[in-house]
Amino acid sequence: MNIRLVGRMVSSILFVTEVFMIPSLVLCCVDGDHEVAMAFLASMAVISLIAGALYIFGRKRDERFSARDGFVTVALAWVLISLLCGLPFYFSSEIPSYVDAVFEIVSGFTTTGASVLPDVESLSRGVLYWRSFSHWLGGMGILVFTLAVVPANRNSGGTLYLMRAESPGPSVGKLTPRIRQTAMILYGLYILLTILCIVFLLAGGMPLFDSVCTAFGTAGTGGFGIKNDSMASYSPYLQNVCTVFMLLFGVNFNVYFLLLIRKFSAAFKDEEVRLYLFLFASATGLIAWNIRPMMQSFAESLHHAAFQVSSIMTTTGFSTVNFDVWPSFSKSILLILMALGACAGSTGGGIKTVRLLLLVKELRYNVQRTLQPRSVRAIHVNGRVVDKEVITGVNSYMAAYCLLIFGSILLISLDDFSLETNISAVFACFNNIGPGFDVVGPMANYDAFSDFSKIVLTVDMLLGRLEIFPLLALFSRSAWTKKL
Amino acid sequence: MNIRLVGRMVSSILFVTEVFMIPSLVLCCVDGDHEVAMAFLASMAVISLIAGALYIFGRKRDERFSARDGFVTVALAWVLISLLCGLPFYFSSEIPSYVDAVFEIVSGFTTTGASVLPDVESLSRGVLYWRSFSHWLGGMGILVFTLAVVPANRNSGGTLYLMRAESPGPSVGKLTPRIRQTAMILYGLYILLTILCIVFLLAGGMPLFDSVCTAFGTAGTGGFGIKNDSMASYSPYLQNVCTVFMLLFGVNFNVYFLLLIRKFSAAFKDEEVRLYLFLFASATGLIAWNIRPMMQSFAESLHHAAFQVSSIMTTTGFSTVNFDVWPSFSKSILLILMALGACAGSTGGGIKTVRLLLLVKELRYNVQRTLQPRSVRAIHVNGRVVDKEVITGVNSYMAAYCLLIFGSILLISLDDFSLETNISAVFACFNNIGPGFDVVGPMANYDAFSDFSKIVLTVDMLLGRLEIFPLLALFSRSAWTKKL
Repeated sequence: MNIRLVGRMVSSILFVTEVFMIPSLVLCCVDGDHEVAMAFLASMAVISLIAGALYIFGRKRDERFSARDGFVTVALAWVLISLLCGLPFYFSSEIPSYVDAVFEIVSGFTTTGASVLPDVESLSRGVLYWRSFSHWLGGMGILVFTLAVVPANRNSGGTLYLMRAESPGPSVGKLTPRIRQTAMILYGLYILLTILCIVFLLAGGMPLFDSVCTAFGTAGTGGFGIKNDSMASYSPYLQNVCTVFMLLFGVNFNVYFLLLIRKFSAAFKDEEVRLYLFLFASATGLIAWNIRPMMQSFAESLHHAAFQVSSIMTTTGFSTVNFDVWPSFSKSILLILMALGACAGSTGGGIKTVRLLLLVKELRYNVQRTLQPRSVRAIHVNGRVVDKEVITGVNSYMAAYCLLIFGSILLISLDDFSLETNISAVFACFNNIGPGFDVVGPMANYDAFSDFSKIVLTVDMLLGRLEIFPLLALFSRSAWTKKL
Repeated sequence: MNIRLVGRMVSSILFVTEVFMIPSLVLCCVDGDHEVAMAFLASMAVISLIAGALYIFGRKRDERFSARDGFVTVALAWVLISLLCGLPFYFSSEIPSYVDAVFEIVSGFTTTGASVLPDVESLSRGVLYWRSFSHWLGGMGILVFTLAVVPANRNSGGTLYLMRAESPGPSVGKLTPRIRQTAMILYGLYILLTILCIVFLLAGGMPLFDSVCTAFGTAGTGGFGIKNDSMASYSPYLQNVCTVFMLLFGVNFNVYFLLLIRKFSAAFKDEEVRLYLFLFASATGLIAWNIRPMMQSFAESLHHAAFQVSSIMTTTGFSTVNFDVWPSFSKSILLILMALGACAGSTGGGIKTVRLLLLVKELRYNVQRTLQPRSVRAIHVNGRVVDKEVITGVNSYMAAYCLLIFGSILLISLDDFSLETNISAVFACFNNIGPGFDVVGPMANYDAFSDFSKIVLTVDMLLGRLEIFPLLALFSRSAWTKKL
């Protein structure tokens, strides 16, 4: 492994992340929260120290870069960010426990939105901003951002591995031949959509600070609210804006790129997006029918169903009502959507719609092959043959997913909460959603868990965001041996 | 498809099944339950009529037999048995609803042991015997039995497909080159072990009728009790006999064959059996530690932990205590064991230990291949390279399993029970266990569900027993087209 180059790259990522603390620092100074400002400064000092050491360590390096190095860079960067970026919460005593601070910031960067805080309205604006901003940065990817802004290495072929390791989904489309350009286009689209979201929220009378934070949470499909009741007290117009934008941010960004270069028919025929919209529409319809008796009118029922489905399916986690009291049928639909998640190549988490598509197609393929061995064609998505490697990857992912989910449920069950709590907590963290049912329902939080369970759930959030394998690679002995 | 030959084979299976109703008929006559005896006679008449019609339909046939025909034969035979073999319950009014009668007999033949009856002690002995016997016959396979006793076709190559379709596990080992001989050896071992179990139960003072029924439930890893409290009121000795025999019937029967032909080292090195015993020991240890505060002594804690782990893991479903009140950690372990199940090639259900083994090995293989593309060997089990087809089959199975489990949970959640009830009910039926948690806990039954949910769960039991694909094939259009 080219450990010096890995160190150098991680150092760049840390420096970039640190720069993003400055707005929070400014907000604290404006509001006169000097203690919190000092906490941010101290955190920046610690991060600078570590990033600097890694920079010096990585000076003498060669530029060869393998898939393995990509995995390890991504995993190391995320672990360090998890351990360091919660420091402002801890130093300022706004979150007095270090485990809680790490949980909260990992929940932010992984766009989970699960919180240990019972009262977010008492936090300073600098901390609130940092929480919400972590969603925005983590959603599209810290590494992808770094790739877009830091000048590329001479041998830039290796950076594709970085993008593959951080971007969600079974395969990464290179929009353009140059990775840096792809990263810039992705972030360009992302910033554009985020600004649009802010404008629509401002138009509905939401204050600027609220709009920016809500837009960050929506864009990253994160779900940290700045109100204790999440989105419940905002107007139906504002809630609808969120419904639509959450749904938009759950779409594969390649589709927006196709729209941008005017390949409309390819964009509208995308099988993953079609399935995604079909699932959204049918889940909304079924839940609206199921919760009708609890609501004043069918329109209200449809309004809340659409918001909750959009929020859970894109793995955002905002809520307008306490869906924990909904009938079992609606809760089961939400539980399934939790696992499914949004499209690959979006900011959403979960298994991803395209993997469901591939699993169903693979299943049909195998049944047909058993029955009629000679008459079976390959598996196609969007008119192209799917590579066997991709199918193998999906199968490994699903196997690892199931094993880790079951293992995590087992570990946190030591806290002796209900099975419903444990299953939904693991689902909500692993799939980067946020709220679950029962003890971790939308009107509750994760504070009831022991430190041990919080650590398990923190690791689950990271595993879910990075889609398991980069972190597994970090613990594989063969990643640390010298020979390629 | 060779539909006439399929019809002829299904007819043989129905005749064989019918013959097994005779002991129940005799028991009814001995006990003077004339009404129940008439119900059995009427059922036999109906079955004879249908089997006779199929026999005549299948007279003019050729002997070519494909994998597809094997799937369809197994699926059709099981569907007909499901619809017909519950008739004695229905005709005798001991189970007044036809849906309930079908649920009960499917639960029997699939070795699930889930019951809709709140009071089994009020049933006649003929019906009790038929319930328990269905476990025994369904456990090793009705078709496998038919293969063993009905003279083979001239072209007997095709019968391997039948055995493959009915036997659990990713691949079927031919113990001997001739299928009929393999079927006879399997049933020979099965009968021997069942008799041993009866002898051990009799030695503990259990009455003959109880011993036979309990041995049927144990051998088939079924779980229908003849007492309302399952095994709770029997002596610790009798409970321990069951613990041991359940565990024995969950072992791959190929291992017993290896012992029989004195290949001891191959038998003791079997990786699946080793993993199976390791899982049993660790689950028992963890639960014994976890429930210690609820018990008088550690010995008692170990006793009940071992019984419940053996019962759930082999998918039998007997119980000595109400494990629904155990701590969440123990319940989570049981939930995971429910899904895992016993060894392939045993009478147990579930995903099967060998599939877990293959999934873990496949996962490790894929991680290593990503990190070091050039230095990876194939996947081995028991010293042999595993065929790629087998791995593909395991992946398809897991995908279909997850999709069907989630779909079933969704459908039965319309009854609005808790998520814990719904998840554990589907797990307990699909994996052929019997009791779940909450509303379907070990001291409760499935009567609370609506007819619709009972039908969903009945289909789940069949899907689980036949490992999904034969039934899927029945609904695939290509199974019904003429061309091969």
